[in-house]
Amino acid sequence: MNGSPPPQRRQRSDGRRSRDTILNTAARVATVQGLDGLSIGGLADHTGMSKSGLYAHFTSKEELQIATIDRAIEIFRAEVLEPAHTQGTGLRLLWALADGFLSYLEREVFPGGCFFAAVGAEFSGRPGRVKERVVEFTVEWLQELEAAATQAQAAGDIGPSPEPQQLAFEVDALLTMAHATYTTFRDPAYLSRSRRGIQRLLGPRPA
Amino acid sequence: MNGSPPPQRRQRSDGRRSRDTILNTAARVATVQGLDGLSIGGLADHTGMSKSGLYAHFTSKEELQIATIDRAIEIFRAEVLEPAHTQGTGLRLLWALADGFLSYLEREVFPGGCFFAAVGAEFSGRPGRVKERVVEFTVEWLQELEAAATQAQAAGDIGPSPEPQQLAFEVDALLTMAHATYTTFRDPAYLSRSRRGIQRLLGPRPA
Repeated sequence: MNGSPPPQRRQRSDGRRSRDTILNTAARVATVQGLDGLSIGGLADHTGMSKSGLYAHFTSKEELQIATIDRAIEIFRAEVLEPAHTQGTGLRLLWALADGFLSYLEREVFPGGCFFAAVGAEFSGRPGRVKERVVEFTVEWLQELEAAATQAQAAGDIGPSPEPQQLAFEVDALLTMAHATYTTFRDPAYLSRSRRGIQRLLGPRPA
Repeated sequence: MNGSPPPQRRQRSDGRRSRDTILNTAARVATVQGLDGLSIGGLADHTGMSKSGLYAHFTSKEELQIATIDRAIEIFRAEVLEPAHTQGTGLRLLWALADGFLSYLEREVFPGGCFFAAVGAEFSGRPGRVKERVVEFTVEWLQELEAAATQAQAAGDIGPSPEPQQLAFEVDALLTMAHATYTTFRDPAYLSRSRRGIQRLLGPRPA
């Protein structure tokens, strides 16, 4: 007996680790080369794994694409949504979501900016499972903003107009523009412009 | 002597017509499949021309991509910029640029929404001549909005805050969001949301 896990369990956990490595790499690469630009060969080069090892994890390109989106969702939840929800509700949450998003751009969690803006743009005109999965999460994000705006209005922390759906649209417009301009120009001044626009919409951050 | 042009001139004008056909098709296709998704073979299928005929017009893929961007710029000028400039200056021009942009999305001048938003997203992380050409025109567009905002403030038609560069950023954020959401959901309600946001920024259209 020694401290190593039995061979079968080790094999499973090695498999999970290599799948993790592949998907983390795929999610990053997809924001620069496109989700359609992912290839088993390219990922083999990036991860140092063999092509046959990669084929063992993903039987089709679409399966790889969907798994990559699901990994990007996990990353976004961990980097933006979960930390924001520790900050409170209503206006505090709305600001934390916006600041968290801008920080996720600035920290270059993905080298091509927001994964969902990048891949959403790539697939907007291409119906199918890939587009559906991206749209589903984009709608979830808009609903997060809207729910926080609803709470903020109910608490009287922001005025009743415009209604939460419109306010969420306008906040997300400024965040999407931050993505587009920051990825193009790599100048944090654009993140500040976005933040100033949000401040005009929401008023200052609650102390 | 008859009414036909001499053979050499006819040949040149046929050549220009077929180049026009190729580039109009390429600009449309690029907004759905990506500028990098353009191929001589695919364009031959779309236009009904022979591959060898297409190779006669473009010696490299990059040359085809740059020519496609230049054609898209001509289309955008004819569809958005020139009509807006017939509407006046200052606030009137600013509203005409915004309305013209939303109408260009709604009329689906390009099937994938705004050519520059689509191709800008595709190339944001890929330095080179293609990105430079797209960025150059994107900056020109932002400067158009900014110049109109400067005139509108000088005329007292809108207040002095925020400064023109910030105002142009916020208007373009709402237009970029209209592109992103309309291409994804194909629902004109998103164009209305964008217009409402612009009205909150600029006040109502001048009569």
